[in-house]
Amino acid sequence: MTAVLGIDIGGTKIAGGIVTDKGAVLGDQTVPSRAKEGRDAVLGQLSILIGNLTAQATEDITAIGIGTAGEVDPGRGAITSATDNIPGWTGTPLAEICRREWGLPCSVDNDGNAAALGELWFGAGRDFHYFVYISLGTGVGGAVIDGGRLLRGHGNFAAALGHTTIDYGGRSCNCGSTGCLETYVSGTAVTALARELGAADSGRELLQKARAQDLHAQTLMEDIGRYLGVGLANFVNLFNPEAIVVGGGLGEAGDLLLRPAEVTMNQRVLQGLRGRTRLLATALGNRAGFMGGAVLALSSLGRARP
Amino acid sequence: MTAVLGIDIGGTKIAGGIVTDKGAVLGDQTVPSRAKEGRDAVLGQLSILIGNLTAQATEDITAIGIGTAGEVDPGRGAITSATDNIPGWTGTPLAEICRREWGLPCSVDNDGNAAALGELWFGAGRDFHYFVYISLGTGVGGAVIDGGRLLRGHGNFAAALGHTTIDYGGRSCNCGSTGCLETYVSGTAVTALARELGAADSGRELLQKARAQDLHAQTLMEDIGRYLGVGLANFVNLFNPEAIVVGGGLGEAGDLLLRPAEVTMNQRVLQGLRGRTRLLATALGNRAGFMGGAVLALSSLGRARP
Repeated sequence: MTAVLGIDIGGTKIAGGIVTDKGAVLGDQTVPSRAKEGRDAVLGQLSILIGNLTAQATEDITAIGIGTAGEVDPGRGAITSATDNIPGWTGTPLAEICRREWGLPCSVDNDGNAAALGELWFGAGRDFHYFVYISLGTGVGGAVIDGGRLLRGHGNFAAALGHTTIDYGGRSCNCGSTGCLETYVSGTAVTALARELGAADSGRELLQKARAQDLHAQTLMEDIGRYLGVGLANFVNLFNPEAIVVGGGLGEAGDLLLRPAEVTMNQRVLQGLRGRTRLLATALGNRAGFMGGAVLALSSLGRARP
Repeated sequence: MTAVLGIDIGGTKIAGGIVTDKGAVLGDQTVPSRAKEGRDAVLGQLSILIGNLTAQATEDITAIGIGTAGEVDPGRGAITSATDNIPGWTGTPLAEICRREWGLPCSVDNDGNAAALGELWFGAGRDFHYFVYISLGTGVGGAVIDGGRLLRGHGNFAAALGHTTIDYGGRSCNCGSTGCLETYVSGTAVTALARELGAADSGRELLQKARAQDLHAQTLMEDIGRYLGVGLANFVNLFNPEAIVVGGGLGEAGDLLLRPAEVTMNQRVLQGLRGRTRLLATALGNRAGFMGGAVLALSSLGRARP
């Protein structure tokens, strides 16, 4: 049995786990991210987290894999650009820092790619070779698996799923564009909308109310599902996946969100593709990130998908 | 030197050429397509065209490759679905028919994939490993090359570039959805719009007038360019290509269309991608299709991209 560490570095939390090559989690830990304090604070947290997990492990840890917010050059394991979530993060040679401190092989990719690989090996993507993973969190991210392999694009920037325009004259996005999918279906957008309409004070509350059959909350969830369906139809027509896996905080809504999304998606895709793409909730939930980090580590050791 | 036949079967024309492994065209022929008369009429034309080209060739022809309208299973070389452009086309085992009649290896793919491969090997994509080819013809099609390889998706349906929504409440598309890019930038859409606004009677006339600095025509071309830019921004954010190559009849507009498209594209893409994607006109023009057919044939012989 091989055991590795998988780490997920985000703007709101940092999580890590001891993961075997069969996908068993032997231990894990999550801490609130000190991202706002900048790069050194995050590197400090990372060091403590890896230390804790290593101390806790009963198996030898043979590699470390990290999925992180920001764009990554996976060859160098360095951050090539980042949003303001983690000040100073751009340029950080994360793999090198980690290798130097822990003396282990260390691989790094962006968090969307990592989570998709986590679902591909150990989660809702297990049965597929072509799938899209979309994460509805603070922002909307994700990744595309085509023939078992990540769609990376020239600079590993591909699959910015949240920043596809679905309404060119629509809502302003903090990326500078208008009508991005993210402005309709991110946790941030949904919370703002729920407050504006007096339906709920948070995404979580909205979800609770919708589950308790509050009509106002249910209607709003359906609207959000329909927006999501417009975006998913684009992804079906562009990537022709076998399945789309929806993760992130809002992904926890499950059928409340996915059923209206599926109806809209199938109304809008090309005729030959109608009803041919499965729409699934994440199987790994908020573990997808660090499980994906573990996949990066296992891949670097030459392990293949189980 | 190896010579092959490349064929391009479309709804309006059927074209073919004798092409060498270096991309030289030793002879070619184009005829108006009898697509409306259905499958057998098209197969008859195909047979005559291949006969003409074979008779004309001074080199041995060693393989045939065909790009065709409709969706294709490239493994079997059969049409899996088609629009009404060619009645009866769905199900046609094109590679098998061709092999039986001519006794040569025969490969088939859809016309978007073929044209993209043509540009990749011998045209505007020569210097790139990551690029998007978009064809603005009667409809809007295309293909995506990621790391030198076609993005196919699960059923070879990927990269239906014309059927991405850029305005979910927008114009009705004949695919059944609304606000598809195709409804803004196809030759059909542009002609309809030019007539409606009294700017010109055809796409060709619109182009001539814009070139002659007719203000009305110029303004309309800029509007179309901006719509195109919205779609291209989506493709940059999703595929992160080094370049986008624009072909098809409307692609002949060149800078008149591409410059406003480029401005809009760079306004809308993620910050890290601004100014980093080249926007190029097709280098092969209406030869892209049969040159791409030739690439299918050369690939089937084990030839690599020059």
